[in-house]
Amino acid sequence: MQASTSPFAARFAPARVQQYIDELGAIGAQPDGGLYRGLYTPAWAAAMDRMEAWLRELGLETRRDAVGNLFGRLAGTASARVVLSGSHIDTVKQGGKYDGALGAIAAMLAISALRDTYGPPRKTLEVYVICEEEGSRFPANFWGSRALTGQIRPDEPERLRDADGITLAEAMRAQGLDPAAIPTARRDDLDAFVELHIEQGRLLEEGGYDLGVVETITGQRQLRVRVTGRQDHAGTTPMDLRRDALAGAAEMIARLTDAAAAMGRPAVATSGMIAVQPGAINIVPRVAQFTVDTRHPDPERRRALIAQIETILQEVAARRGLGLEVERLTDHEPTPMAPALRDLIAEAASAEGLRWLAMPSGAGHDSQILARHVPTAMLFVPSRDGRSHCPEEFTPVEQIVPGLRVLARVLHRLAY
Amino acid sequence: MQASTSPFAARFAPARVQQYIDELGAIGAQPDGGLYRGLYTPAWAAAMDRMEAWLRELGLETRRDAVGNLFGRLAGTASARVVLSGSHIDTVKQGGKYDGALGAIAAMLAISALRDTYGPPRKTLEVYVICEEEGSRFPANFWGSRALTGQIRPDEPERLRDADGITLAEAMRAQGLDPAAIPTARRDDLDAFVELHIEQGRLLEEGGYDLGVVETITGQRQLRVRVTGRQDHAGTTPMDLRRDALAGAAEMIARLTDAAAAMGRPAVATSGMIAVQPGAINIVPRVAQFTVDTRHPDPERRRALIAQIETILQEVAARRGLGLEVERLTDHEPTPMAPALRDLIAEAASAEGLRWLAMPSGAGHDSQILARHVPTAMLFVPSRDGRSHCPEEFTPVEQIVPGLRVLARVLHRLAY
Repeated sequence: MQASTSPFAARFAPARVQQYIDELGAIGAQPDGGLYRGLYTPAWAAAMDRMEAWLRELGLETRRDAVGNLFGRLAGTASARVVLSGSHIDTVKQGGKYDGALGAIAAMLAISALRDTYGPPRKTLEVYVICEEEGSRFPANFWGSRALTGQIRPDEPERLRDADGITLAEAMRAQGLDPAAIPTARRDDLDAFVELHIEQGRLLEEGGYDLGVVETITGQRQLRVRVTGRQDHAGTTPMDLRRDALAGAAEMIARLTDAAAAMGRPAVATSGMIAVQPGAINIVPRVAQFTVDTRHPDPERRRALIAQIETILQEVAARRGLGLEVERLTDHEPTPMAPALRDLIAEAASAEGLRWLAMPSGAGHDSQILARHVPTAMLFVPSRDGRSHCPEEFTPVEQIVPGLRVLARVLHRLAY
Repeated sequence: MQASTSPFAARFAPARVQQYIDELGAIGAQPDGGLYRGLYTPAWAAAMDRMEAWLRELGLETRRDAVGNLFGRLAGTASARVVLSGSHIDTVKQGGKYDGALGAIAAMLAISALRDTYGPPRKTLEVYVICEEEGSRFPANFWGSRALTGQIRPDEPERLRDADGITLAEAMRAQGLDPAAIPTARRDDLDAFVELHIEQGRLLEEGGYDLGVVETITGQRQLRVRVTGRQDHAGTTPMDLRRDALAGAAEMIARLTDAAAAMGRPAVATSGMIAVQPGAINIVPRVAQFTVDTRHPDPERRRALIAQIETILQEVAARRGLGLEVERLTDHEPTPMAPALRDLIAEAASAEGLRWLAMPSGAGHDSQILARHVPTAMLFVPSRDGRSHCPEEFTPVEQIVPGLRVLARVLHRLAY
């Protein structure tokens, strides 16, 4: 089937799509390149205002909830049950203009195109501009989707602080939001959620695919590992008398990354942070602290990988006489996407004549939060060279437009 | 031979020795425990003043040179050629009260005891209170002994800065010292240098020895290693596509420390500092930078160990597709002590009835700088539990007094 048969062939003019991306991507631009739109910062507020203005221009009815999530509504003629599509508007530090933002723009353009093509839907369609996902200002990942699904713990607003010591509650109030109203953000009128996102990896590009249909959002465990040895003089202490915290941590990191590699795709393990104490060139380190981020979309293999990593940590610590403390920072089971929605995306991609890949998502997404409460699915457009969370993040608009058409087809099937 | 036959049996009253150590050790004491007497700081100046006052009380003629080295002179009756003994008065951050300071106090007490026991010497004896050795404020290690031996490069005073950006020249002027006068600190009237120091290791204590006779000051090379990979998303980038800078650095550190251990004592290799960029839990590190400090007192084995380490760095970088930059920070060949002086120390230790060990020094010392210009030797007293460069640094005075007697015997043989 050829793309020329698409009902949306004329709907997503590449130049116009690019303009939305570039205009939103200019908000929060930093002098050193890259974007930063932390939750409840001025740049975040400006991006939200811009999205709201666009939603209104396109004839959608807007509303914000207690945490600042923004919705653009196209009321259904037959049902107030809602088919939701969107993504988050916040960014990491030094982020790019596609991660999250593209999914919000895509939902806006797809729903507006549906209205222009088919008139009002049977079920209600809503654009969902999610206030926060990245956890880049507050350690509050998935703030927006957790509010929507009633998963925020009551102590979070006063407990969570940014790097300047400001609480989430204070930051909310500075934006005119009332932390006490958070429970009102919960919605129970949702029938489906569909999120378009950039892949943030290289599988589509390397395989020459147009689109990814997400089967499962990977399961993840993050650890903080603290290895304690003995501080010694680097010149006068024989190797056989040392308990070198960094030498031990180094062996752990080398072996745990090897273990993930040996398990094969899509198993991953990463140590992204490390620090030693006292940290002097001529002192054997007393403490080495590092992180581990390990992921697998298969629950059983995820457990096996975690078990292997824990064995490595314990074995190395015991053999080297090192103290070991392992703190679990996050732990998510894999989240399968709703099979019926996955199939809809795959059918729509085929109908658009696209080459698509059923694949896991190695990154976390709001969809894993929504999926606990409502049938949810995701589609990926390719990421140039797999780059993400960096200023080089890029997807050519020619690879975005097919995704918009698929998203519009899927929402059409769900709401018309 | 028994210690009771020592001519100095009554000279070094333990309580008095301890009092000098404790009084000097109170200067620069920090609220968090430990000492800090960085070069040209107020605590450093106070310690110098205290030493000068003591030297005068004990009847020695004092003098300071262009960089602030302090001398306490006991003029010879037959020769103005000088037998020198002492050590440095500066400390590392969080340092103890024995490293360096003990050698200055020991020289002062030994020379004063010689004068009291035998009257004026034939050759001139001088206590040498060295202004700087540790490099803890400025990257100017061995500042005092390099000035004395004419090894300071003309650009150093204006080029070297402390952590606050103050140049060495500015710090000198604030102490009333003229950087332009540094060349006048050079001395060519020296016949010998003998330095008493704490071992800073555990070999004497573990072997039950009273004293160490240093054969060689170990050769040292310090490297800064920068490993460059590729920044990637920790969830979406398969292991087989990664170029993970930290995983590579970890393998390097684990293997290079193993290589030193496999070579056996006294080979050592240490990575004491490491940092990664960008340093986020969910980002594959693009850069990992770490230090290597490797030492061996045998020139040939030192070369072999360095070659092994370089091979490991290159092999790991090549196999993992990582960039590698290796910067050499310091490079000292091993420094053998003067055989005749070593023999004198050993004979004196035996005459005092001590159990002594001929051993390398794994730490660097001013003696390695002096040894290039004048016959030089060192003796070690034990370090409790090998601790050094920390507040726990300790040697019981009962283990110090025998060292003072040996030092006095050696200086007697050299100057009387």
